[in-house]
Amino acid sequence: MSYSVPLEMDAVELTEEGGPLTLQRRPVARPAAGEVLVHVAAAPINPSDLGFLAGTYTVKRTLPVVPGFEGSGTVVAAGPGLMPRLLVGRRVAFAVPAGGTWAEYVVAPARTCIPLGRAIDLESAATLIVNPLTALAFFEIARTGGHVAIVSNAAASTLGRMVIRLGRSEGVPILNIVRRVEQADELRAVGAEHVLVSTASDYPERLRELARRLQATLVLDAVGGDDTRVLLDAAPAGSTLLAYSNLSGAPSVFSARTLISDRKRVEGFYLAHWLEARGFRRKAGDVRRVQRLASSDLQTHVQGRFPLADAQRAVDTYRGHMTAGKVLLLAREMG
Amino acid sequence: MSYSVPLEMDAVELTEEGGPLTLQRRPVARPAAGEVLVHVAAAPINPSDLGFLAGTYTVKRTLPVVPGFEGSGTVVAAGPGLMPRLLVGRRVAFAVPAGGTWAEYVVAPARTCIPLGRAIDLESAATLIVNPLTALAFFEIARTGGHVAIVSNAAASTLGRMVIRLGRSEGVPILNIVRRVEQADELRAVGAEHVLVSTASDYPERLRELARRLQATLVLDAVGGDDTRVLLDAAPAGSTLLAYSNLSGAPSVFSARTLISDRKRVEGFYLAHWLEARGFRRKAGDVRRVQRLASSDLQTHVQGRFPLADAQRAVDTYRGHMTAGKVLLLAREMG
Repeated sequence: MSYSVPLEMDAVELTEEGGPLTLQRRPVARPAAGEVLVHVAAAPINPSDLGFLAGTYTVKRTLPVVPGFEGSGTVVAAGPGLMPRLLVGRRVAFAVPAGGTWAEYVVAPARTCIPLGRAIDLESAATLIVNPLTALAFFEIARTGGHVAIVSNAAASTLGRMVIRLGRSEGVPILNIVRRVEQADELRAVGAEHVLVSTASDYPERLRELARRLQATLVLDAVGGDDTRVLLDAAPAGSTLLAYSNLSGAPSVFSARTLISDRKRVEGFYLAHWLEARGFRRKAGDVRRVQRLASSDLQTHVQGRFPLADAQRAVDTYRGHMTAGKVLLLAREMG
Repeated sequence: MSYSVPLEMDAVELTEEGGPLTLQRRPVARPAAGEVLVHVAAAPINPSDLGFLAGTYTVKRTLPVVPGFEGSGTVVAAGPGLMPRLLVGRRVAFAVPAGGTWAEYVVAPARTCIPLGRAIDLESAATLIVNPLTALAFFEIARTGGHVAIVSNAAASTLGRMVIRLGRSEGVPILNIVRRVEQADELRAVGAEHVLVSTASDYPERLRELARRLQATLVLDAVGGDDTRVLLDAAPAGSTLLAYSNLSGAPSVFSARTLISDRKRVEGFYLAHWLEARGFRRKAGDVRRVQRLASSDLQTHVQGRFPLADAQRAVDTYRGHMTAGKVLLLAREMG
């Protein structure tokens, strides 16, 4: 199989601090050993992308830069190595830890590519990695850590909804936390049993009471700031708080006394590190599971689709209403 | 062997919020199953006692209350059980998790009693448990966690000095942090190799550079507040911060991003919990080691001795200069 690959491509670029994102012509890179070149179909805007654009994300950037950490597409060229060669011609979901998926072409590590079964279209595949594998990771951490219930703030997010559905399938009670009453109603309507609104005046007491009743000793914290202190104080003795995002943008706070008295701990969660430590065989199992559940528990609701040229508008749309679903950038017509 | 035990005793009492401590007559309690009655010789004032008096410590109190968590003395009566009976007549170091050692007599769990070898006098034994076992615990945590060097703030404290000496014996580099230049000079004079002054303007950079050079991935944090954030940001990837006290009295702060990006974690350390999890045989080894090192690595410098009647003055003296050494309360003449 052989593909004709152009020398140049369209790519979304953050050219100067603060934006706006613009469409630029950039050279198409060549895959090195262990890498493939993907003709991108679609790529999502994730919370991590917003952090990346703001310069507050884990992955550091030097301008100009092409954002985007995951996507779907077709592998059209391979660097040296058996795995890259076997992927040529395959439709894949893929991740690029250094970023660059908001473009017509991108070089991706072959080990991050998930060859797609026939049942999955390229649009669904664009969001197959970051959120679904994170959701699976949370439940794996709960299982191995002996946690029988989970606290999840940012519960109305795409990831939060996956956690709700997986919790139901796995019989793990989820204590969901949202900011607005309408979000609580919405989550209850899709079957969430325990939902608290963090802006309610009796929130800390209700959180404490419910967390203890459910023995929710794994706390998924996407918000940070003073919310972290409230979550930790309310959690039962022996709890672990996983900080996996910092949507509040504020420094996180905790009471040392709570940690000392009640054997609580705080850890960071970063998907790339977790997958590294996971090992090949178990990761392969995760990947099969993610594909199997892509149209059920791990489904992503898409609120909007934009061509690459409208990337700035796409980002604004997503930022304006993050809990309404994912926004996708479409890099080409999809067959 | 039989002792005559009076019905009433002198005891230091915190009678109302804010103090002062006064000497009161209280009934002598009877040991229940698994407990012994100790005729107290000496009891120290520890940082945890100051927290207890202020109402900010792990152990909650109802007034009036007799403070004090450890001490030395002679076992004069036993509740039901083999272990209590075997201890009668023995000189012991002992701990009372619920407090009450600042008195002529106190009931202690037999399992906390360390029968003393002849080489140890009752004054040295008064501080044999809290600090020495905590210091040993830190090195055990370092060993099992694969940490090759340790960061220690509050380095001029009694515990900090034990960590310095044990570090030298065990070949574990200690990165010591103090607040004042004179403390740094003092610690260097007793052989501390790495000492930083946290009030120096270049402290964060020097801490970062030195922590990375030493690969100091275990951070012992007695201070809390914003110091915690500075310690965590400076620590190498994969570091664990153990919060074991909160001398600053301020809520602790961390950057979620640091935890997420660099696999760092925060845990609370509480000696009673650590000993519970340690198991009988290993604990027996710790106890032998603490006695062996009591006059060397785990020695406690005593800055002052006060009778029970002068407890308030003793506390004021200790609070006024915590790093000058321990202050002991003497409950009786020592032979």
